[in-house]
Amino acid sequence: VFVDGVPMRTVWFAPHGEDVVEVIDQTRLPHELAVVRWSTLEDAARGIETMQVRGAPLIGVSAAHGVFLAMAADPSDGALTDAIARLRRTRPTAVNLGWALDVVEAELRPLDPVHRKEAARVLAERLADEDVEACRRIGEAGLPLLLDAARSDGRIEVLTHCNAGWLATVDWGTALAPIYRAHDDGVPVRVAVSETRPRNQGALTAWELAGHGVPHRLVADNAAGHLLAAGEIDVVITGADRIAANGDVANKVGTYLKALAARAHGVPFVVAAPCSTIDLACPDGAAIPIEERSGDEVRLVAGTTWRGGVDAVRIVRGDTPVANPAFDVTPAALVTAVITERGVVPATTEGIASLFDR
Amino acid sequence: VFVDGVPMRTVWFAPHGEDVVEVIDQTRLPHELAVVRWSTLEDAARGIETMQVRGAPLIGVSAAHGVFLAMAADPSDGALTDAIARLRRTRPTAVNLGWALDVVEAELRPLDPVHRKEAARVLAERLADEDVEACRRIGEAGLPLLLDAARSDGRIEVLTHCNAGWLATVDWGTALAPIYRAHDDGVPVRVAVSETRPRNQGALTAWELAGHGVPHRLVADNAAGHLLAAGEIDVVITGADRIAANGDVANKVGTYLKALAARAHGVPFVVAAPCSTIDLACPDGAAIPIEERSGDEVRLVAGTTWRGGVDAVRIVRGDTPVANPAFDVTPAALVTAVITERGVVPATTEGIASLFDR
Repeated sequence: VFVDGVPMRTVWFAPHGEDVVEVIDQTRLPHELAVVRWSTLEDAARGIETMQVRGAPLIGVSAAHGVFLAMAADPSDGALTDAIARLRRTRPTAVNLGWALDVVEAELRPLDPVHRKEAARVLAERLADEDVEACRRIGEAGLPLLLDAARSDGRIEVLTHCNAGWLATVDWGTALAPIYRAHDDGVPVRVAVSETRPRNQGALTAWELAGHGVPHRLVADNAAGHLLAAGEIDVVITGADRIAANGDVANKVGTYLKALAARAHGVPFVVAAPCSTIDLACPDGAAIPIEERSGDEVRLVAGTTWRGGVDAVRIVRGDTPVANPAFDVTPAALVTAVITERGVVPATTEGIASLFDR
Repeated sequence: VFVDGVPMRTVWFAPHGEDVVEVIDQTRLPHELAVVRWSTLEDAARGIETMQVRGAPLIGVSAAHGVFLAMAADPSDGALTDAIARLRRTRPTAVNLGWALDVVEAELRPLDPVHRKEAARVLAERLADEDVEACRRIGEAGLPLLLDAARSDGRIEVLTHCNAGWLATVDWGTALAPIYRAHDDGVPVRVAVSETRPRNQGALTAWELAGHGVPHRLVADNAAGHLLAAGEIDVVITGADRIAANGDVANKVGTYLKALAARAHGVPFVVAAPCSTIDLACPDGAAIPIEERSGDEVRLVAGTTWRGGVDAVRIVRGDTPVANPAFDVTPAALVTAVITERGVVPATTEGIASLFDR
């Protein structure tokens, strides 16, 4: 994408040959477009844990960059083992993380340590480029599916959840890629952006869409049922953090509720993800680990006196118990189709398997 | 209820014969238990609009208190007409408002203006007392239904949405009344409290439950599907803002998503409300007006750098378009039962009608 006329990705190597990785600090958006520098493995691991970078595809590519930082400091076998183990622990649900680390392990392990640093850099850049290309193809593959949902006057109202745009990947995004394609082609598409509590990734999506000129409106997560019942949504499209072999989809918590409501009103519910999000080793959604995050994310609530001004952030009592699952599983039966860089398939065991037979 | 050992309601007349109504300012909870004084009709109308008081039953009783303030200033026929019209415009969805104003109109209109002020005070107090008694009975009527949902070890995990506790009524609450009854009887009940964006009334519910010693945990609205799928919820219970003649239920936006998820997992979805919430003139949910509130409620998002401290309230761009429906409609087919002060009935035309044949 271009931001203020400047081409930009979400993660890149610092210029001038420094052993530094730079990422957009997504915890500061949409307030501020800040870049944070990672100099060490621990910077990268903490950055992934604290969601400076988030989104399944970006987590995977960022982890590969983190391995580079580790190899720059110490390219030994032990350091490689430790780096991969440290990064693997950061986030449990997105399988792209494990996928990227498996690729890194397979490519770097056989090398002589003196070659690992440079190989890690080349590999991280390759994974980033491949992600950009996969997302571009997801946009292409998903476009007809989006157009199928158009009203008689050509308008398309899309509902999405969380952020599955360029910020969740290296560029273009997954769920948003077909939307950007449609918009660029002059199709009148408008997006209902679900806020996505507790971390408000909807604000990232609204920021992205505004930057790209795509009409949109922000809605509370609670509003999805009403909007679907009112006929205001033609298609629901989300990303995914892990797709099981049977087509069950783990994605940001709240996705399942939207899928249920879409089904209740006969609206297609579509998932867009690169094939690196598919975990053939997971037979179904029950086998996908669901990350439980800090209760403070929920205790922190936007609060005011609601008298026209913003007084303060209201903190629910610090000792209030909280449950904070970060993901949920949408059963394959509720998923109309899965869009990947290799094409669109049904969310069935056969459909998923067919992606790997090509 | 008792708050810090002091008996308390949500609305009352100031002592010492002042023509003043006092209410708990719910926009300041749970930060601060502040009381705000209403001296004029406009104070009351604005207080209802800005949600100093909220919750369908409390809105109705508060409006009756507002009419008293109007009559204290001017008990003429014209002032009565104007007061009722002004208050009727404050919130469109909760039918208890119209119900209470109809009662007020019917009782005050025939009186000589010189008697209206005192009659309005007596009537407002009567409506408040009747609400307390109705809620007490809802607690009694709902208790067996709650106990039916208990696990083999006696524990009951309840999910609720918004605030339908004593803060939403004059005392006891609707959805929370059976929970308070069960807890007071020593039943091990625990409540999952849905945050309820954009206005975060879940924080009110958590505050209430903490004050009463009822075990609970706060969850993001998005978490309901995951909790139900994981078998962590035995019964869902909410209040209502309007129940149509066929049993369709309008309640705080997001209720419908919980009802869909409860049905998907075979968990009872129960609605608790006084009969004043039933609108026999509404044939079904499609006839219930859904309030659209200010987009600023959604634009205001709890935001931080997520680095352990709270920096600021993140404001989504002020020109970000927003859709903010405040309510949604849950079809009767998803409602397991309706608990009222006159007993428990199925959410059917016959069930609802039977409440008025007694």
